[in-house]
Amino acid sequence: MPQIDIEAVKTYLLNLQDNICTAVEAADTQEKFLQDQWDREEGGGGRSRVLANGKVFEQAGINFSHVYGKQLPPSATDKRPELAGCQFQAMGVSLVIHPKNPYVPTSHANVRFFVAEKPNHDPIWWFGGGFDLTPYYPFEQDVKDWHQAAKTICQPYGDDIYPKFKAWCDEYFFLKHRSEPRGVGGLFFDDLNQWGFERSFNFMQAVGNGYLSAYLPIIEKRKDTAYGEREREFQLYRRGRYVEFNLLYDRGTLFGIQSGGRTESILMSLPPLVKWQYNWQPEPNSPEAELYNNYLITKDWV
Amino acid sequence: MPQIDIEAVKTYLLNLQDNICTAVEAADTQEKFLQDQWDREEGGGGRSRVLANGKVFEQAGINFSHVYGKQLPPSATDKRPELAGCQFQAMGVSLVIHPKNPYVPTSHANVRFFVAEKPNHDPIWWFGGGFDLTPYYPFEQDVKDWHQAAKTICQPYGDDIYPKFKAWCDEYFFLKHRSEPRGVGGLFFDDLNQWGFERSFNFMQAVGNGYLSAYLPIIEKRKDTAYGEREREFQLYRRGRYVEFNLLYDRGTLFGIQSGGRTESILMSLPPLVKWQYNWQPEPNSPEAELYNNYLITKDWV
Repeated sequence: MPQIDIEAVKTYLLNLQDNICTAVEAADTQEKFLQDQWDREEGGGGRSRVLANGKVFEQAGINFSHVYGKQLPPSATDKRPELAGCQFQAMGVSLVIHPKNPYVPTSHANVRFFVAEKPNHDPIWWFGGGFDLTPYYPFEQDVKDWHQAAKTICQPYGDDIYPKFKAWCDEYFFLKHRSEPRGVGGLFFDDLNQWGFERSFNFMQAVGNGYLSAYLPIIEKRKDTAYGEREREFQLYRRGRYVEFNLLYDRGTLFGIQSGGRTESILMSLPPLVKWQYNWQPEPNSPEAELYNNYLITKDWV
Repeated sequence: MPQIDIEAVKTYLLNLQDNICTAVEAADTQEKFLQDQWDREEGGGGRSRVLANGKVFEQAGINFSHVYGKQLPPSATDKRPELAGCQFQAMGVSLVIHPKNPYVPTSHANVRFFVAEKPNHDPIWWFGGGFDLTPYYPFEQDVKDWHQAAKTICQPYGDDIYPKFKAWCDEYFFLKHRSEPRGVGGLFFDDLNQWGFERSFNFMQAVGNGYLSAYLPIIEKRKDTAYGEREREFQLYRRGRYVEFNLLYDRGTLFGIQSGGRTESILMSLPPLVKWQYNWQPEPNSPEAELYNNYLITKDWV
């Protein structure tokens, strides 16, 4: 019988949120996170933390939630009929960081754990998560370093893991209506239980811990790059794609919205200021065209 | 056998787009519409027109499209299995106007005609459409006038028509995840064919023509109202709800996106500049609270 340790996962996730908040505050040097602790009527709750109008970060939202219920919603059991009638719990940390400087990429990370239980059955559980990077004015070395960090995290789990979860990330963070990736990707995994609890949990921790090690150096290198109106405008324009992805495609966002989740915590991922401009196209050979031509493509970075 | 005149509808819609553009340009006094004519690979095309950075209008997008195909997509036949295997055509004018001054409401209007045909059957057709108003700093008289105009349009078609289509509008333009109406409503109708072609077409024309008569006086009355940073900020914040509605719920937007429509024309409805702010709440007794308490509610305005 599989041994799962739900409390250990919860403790890890709460600590992860704390650690990331501490590191982000240190990197910002100016603003602090504000926290809202909330309860969910059907069971569970969370800690939503937002740092706004910082020196480095225009907005950073880092959410921990642990929700549970007596019965899975139909949208969750459609594809896994064996889960119908199960009690469930889901917990995770999810974050999106929108820096002020257009030379610092936006980043997103998420780690989650799901357990469904019914009497006289072993619990059904899995881990999911990943992280991905969305640059505006990318530096090739940063993207390589980001993917190298992702690969290093995966390496102990097998040579095929990084290519598999990298490809899954490319596939997931894709805006079909624009035939455009959201950014330069990273890792994405779901339904992870085939390694057993211990090893799967270890992998999730490696991803959670690895996110900061991958992102912080990029912030440090780019946060003081001089920029003007042009770069800012392009950043605001590109942020529109983030909104489009999250509201049109992101499963976590849509599931949260549809299942009566806490709207303000779910939509913390949306950028603080966004522009849309009809039929805007980058000028050929411009730095903006560089993003589209050389980065918003499916590519092996390491 | 019912007589339908597809060309007459198309001619009306093209003229309606022209007339609205002319009136909006006249109201703006500064900027003109730019047009993109486009073709759709599977059949049909459209004329997308955008006026940007005007004196009165920050962005006005007015789209005509006429698309047809050999087979309806499954999403369109799920609820009407009698349409499976039909050739179809859909045509309409759809517009969203985002004024610069926060005292001038955003408005949206749409009129559309749908025809499905198969050999040896009478064509199946219907009209749909409506218009609705989204104020930031509302004036009660404006909202009453807007709804009075809507009622006057409906009156010749029966006493029950305005209440019915007004309620449908309230129901449709509702953000479930915030338990909040998008604005103060207006009219919404769909599947209209029970009056026969001539009368249904007349009603659609009354709605199409009536939109400007309802909206222009509000623009004229409010466009020179003085405003500052505070009003602008609130306008940008509230525009976020427009984005949320259109990307999460609007059937036309989602159908267009999912069926491979022209993305730039579909997303012309999104506001040019938008803010999100975590957990923002209006101050009690402020003009912003007034919007929530006295206007973003279901109410009989006439």
